[in-house]
Amino acid sequence: MPNECVIGVDVGGTKILVGIVRRDGTVAARREHRTQTESQDHLLAQLDAAVEDLLDDDVVAVGFGIPSRIDQRAGRVVASANVPLLDVDLGDRMERRFGLPIAIENDANAATIAEWAAGAGRGTRHMVMLTLGTGVGGGLILDGRPYRGSIGAGGELGHMVLEYGGAPCQGSCTGRGHLEVLASGHAADALARTLLGARATAHDLVDRARAGEEPSREALTELGRRLGAAIGSLVNIFDPEVVVVGGGFAAGAGDLLLQPAREIAAREALVPARDVVRIVPAQLGPEAGLVGAGLVAFEVLDAAA
Amino acid sequence: MPNECVIGVDVGGTKILVGIVRRDGTVAARREHRTQTESQDHLLAQLDAAVEDLLDDDVVAVGFGIPSRIDQRAGRVVASANVPLLDVDLGDRMERRFGLPIAIENDANAATIAEWAAGAGRGTRHMVMLTLGTGVGGGLILDGRPYRGSIGAGGELGHMVLEYGGAPCQGSCTGRGHLEVLASGHAADALARTLLGARATAHDLVDRARAGEEPSREALTELGRRLGAAIGSLVNIFDPEVVVVGGGFAAGAGDLLLQPAREIAAREALVPARDVVRIVPAQLGPEAGLVGAGLVAFEVLDAAA
Repeated sequence: MPNECVIGVDVGGTKILVGIVRRDGTVAARREHRTQTESQDHLLAQLDAAVEDLLDDDVVAVGFGIPSRIDQRAGRVVASANVPLLDVDLGDRMERRFGLPIAIENDANAATIAEWAAGAGRGTRHMVMLTLGTGVGGGLILDGRPYRGSIGAGGELGHMVLEYGGAPCQGSCTGRGHLEVLASGHAADALARTLLGARATAHDLVDRARAGEEPSREALTELGRRLGAAIGSLVNIFDPEVVVVGGGFAAGAGDLLLQPAREIAAREALVPARDVVRIVPAQLGPEAGLVGAGLVAFEVLDAAA
Repeated sequence: MPNECVIGVDVGGTKILVGIVRRDGTVAARREHRTQTESQDHLLAQLDAAVEDLLDDDVVAVGFGIPSRIDQRAGRVVASANVPLLDVDLGDRMERRFGLPIAIENDANAATIAEWAAGAGRGTRHMVMLTLGTGVGGGLILDGRPYRGSIGAGGELGHMVLEYGGAPCQGSCTGRGHLEVLASGHAADALARTLLGARATAHDLVDRARAGEEPSREALTELGRRLGAAIGSLVNIFDPEVVVVGGGFAAGAGDLLLQPAREIAAREALVPARDVVRIVPAQLGPEAGLVGAGLVAFEVLDAAA
């Protein structure tokens, strides 16, 4: 079909982006909604309405990117960060509701697929992505295709142990010293409060560092070094062509974070993988999740054909 | 060809195993040589002679498993542990010498492929292997095939950062706090010397622990917990069906190491991946490298066909 398109839905803790996505990753009819986090029922009703708002005869599938861990055997949402989705067979439910192929994907996986198809990883076959927002998400393109693991729960790169026996991790995670607790926007918020006062955030830390204030600059350098150690591990594990760093916190901090990350990654990574990898910022910005949600809908559509 | 077979060569720091390997992973005409480590020329001459000794008309390819980092773009050995192989295009050289398809593979990758085809990972599509010997090697089977990375240097799981800013790593590695320096046989040797005296080794540590001596038992438990933290990371990254733990040190220590590893892996790994993974010992023992070297020779043969 020449006009065939999908609806992509990117579900975040504060807002939901919805749009018509085409195979080339372009977006039309983009809408933004404030996330209804009162209850799962409220949120599901909001998702239904958001999709129906854009539904027409050219729409052949729907993809959802959600901040969740998913068991793809049933499209089941097992756990979520910042949204009330828990123990729900979201894939089955949406299929019954709309009678269309439905993709349910972790938001960081969706962003990874978007950056691979239309952003910083275009043309590569081996790409690792980290998204630094409130938490740290991850995604993998291996041997030229998205990698999801045995039940679709892989790519949780924010939950690599970076400090054995270190600080307890966030949310429902029982681990210690994970990358997520050491180098997320949330970790930056904590450093900002220590340095700049009880109401300061990661945003303030970046502003002060850009203005040349040394303590804030050093705090970002330390966060970047931790990120770099994790990237070094990932280079040794995957020997990728490119490591893409995205997410709101990383986008704001830019090279204040990426430059120290590159330095430590070079120390931790082995030759020859170290010499071929590029460590680069994401290109699609906050639209990556929406584009990726659409692209996985096409993937499910094609797999069903 | 009904009789077609390959020669597998497993090159270790102390001995070289050579054998005729069939497609089902069975080995015939097994030979063992003491590794000549005087120089690269000595070792290459020894490898030539070891292959020629078993060469006949049924041999259709030769595979080498070596304790090295390899750039597969040219079959180039970039760095090695415990053997004098450095900056040599081993693949090209052996192809010229024998006029047969040649596979050059990292020894831990070879062992992984063997355990997948004929050992503890049989029947799976997502398998992670760690080999605990003097160092820590790793290998990956992802989506039903061996994963090597963009230039064949992937799977270096011993060089994941487990303790950010920790102790310097071994050999030519410039990293810090890597799994290899925290949970290898070498690390166990160091603990044994501290606990049991200057001449004690990992082997003594295991003997004393089995005899019920609490300090030795605790030392192995701590090594197992470190291993478990790394396994937890790997479960979060890969969502594998199985994690196979092999290598001489792990084989000797058995559940003294694996049981604490399972406990900490369960703490560090996320639901739902945590609930589907099995953490099991390798099955093929010291023969894994030889079998794997043969199987990668078949892989190269088939790819050329």
